[in-house]
Amino acid sequence: MNSIFTRRSVRNFLEKEVEDKKIEKILRAAMQAPSAVNQQPWEFLVVKGKENLLRLSKYSPYATSLKNANVGIIVFGNKERMMFPDYWQQDLGAATQNILLEATELGLGSVWYGTASDDGKMKYIQDLYKLGDNLLPYSVIGIGYPKSADAISFVDRFDETRIHYAEKNN
Amino acid sequence: MNSIFTRRSVRNFLEKEVEDKKIEKILRAAMQAPSAVNQQPWEFLVVKGKENLLRLSKYSPYATSLKNANVGIIVFGNKERMMFPDYWQQDLGAATQNILLEATELGLGSVWYGTASDDGKMKYIQDLYKLGDNLLPYSVIGIGYPKSADAISFVDRFDETRIHYAEKNN
Repeated sequence: MNSIFTRRSVRNFLEKEVEDKKIEKILRAAMQAPSAVNQQPWEFLVVKGKENLLRLSKYSPYATSLKNANVGIIVFGNKERMMFPDYWQQDLGAATQNILLEATELGLGSVWYGTASDDGKMKYIQDLYKLGDNLLPYSVIGIGYPKSADAISFVDRFDETRIHYAEKNN
Repeated sequence: MNSIFTRRSVRNFLEKEVEDKKIEKILRAAMQAPSAVNQQPWEFLVVKGKENLLRLSKYSPYATSLKNANVGIIVFGNKERMMFPDYWQQDLGAATQNILLEATELGLGSVWYGTASDDGKMKYIQDLYKLGDNLLPYSVIGIGYPKSADAISFVDRFDETRIHYAEKNN
């Protein structure tokens, strides 16, 4: 079963270092995402270290579990790369999902903290790292080796009532 | 190599029917996406038949290749399911990416046509299918068996300059 089906949100992690090779593989996966006219408007900030993660976790009341992670990845949209600015969030949504899936593929747990377009959350991150006004924080992902043995396992979310059909021959 | 790395945008397809079992598997993958507080705000419309696809393709000047597809899937956000409306587009971005990846996994080509938040495109689709104002068209995906043998293959999009690091111990 591929990682699409076994990915779950994981918020509790072992005290175990995520290997740099795995972080690179995850970022390679992110950059394979589709984007509007291939504009690839993304930049990534890798955050390591207890103190750093604790400080970052305060950007949102929903992100306190980030302090349990071993690595944080912030996905930014770079305004200078947005040829089709209407679609930058869609491009980064695909990149973020690739990060979660590749982490799962590598035996890591992950969780996506929603960030854009909340002005307060975005400003906290911009002020913390001083990367300039052109980098718009879109999402934050916490990653680590999961504490629980069933953290990566299939939970069926299928709901047939969500599927509709257009008539075939009209 | 997993489908994250071999997925590419595919716009030319064989005259070959996509099996219903594969369409169901793709929609199962879509519904495994993460969503804000697990709100799962999605609905899907499956569009088959040459005439239907041709008509749908006219919703955007960038979607003409949709008429070559064997199946179209429209991903909608259902307003009634949006407990956290700020994040519905992020949820559907993850679901759309899962659709593309699962199609790749099954040997199918796919392409994502950006739709929200373009009022004209959204209204065209809403008027065409009369699903009510609560269903907001987010994306359209064309799917089929690819014409070209290298349609599903790795193209390296890695760019090391997009990766930044926060200092580990501050």
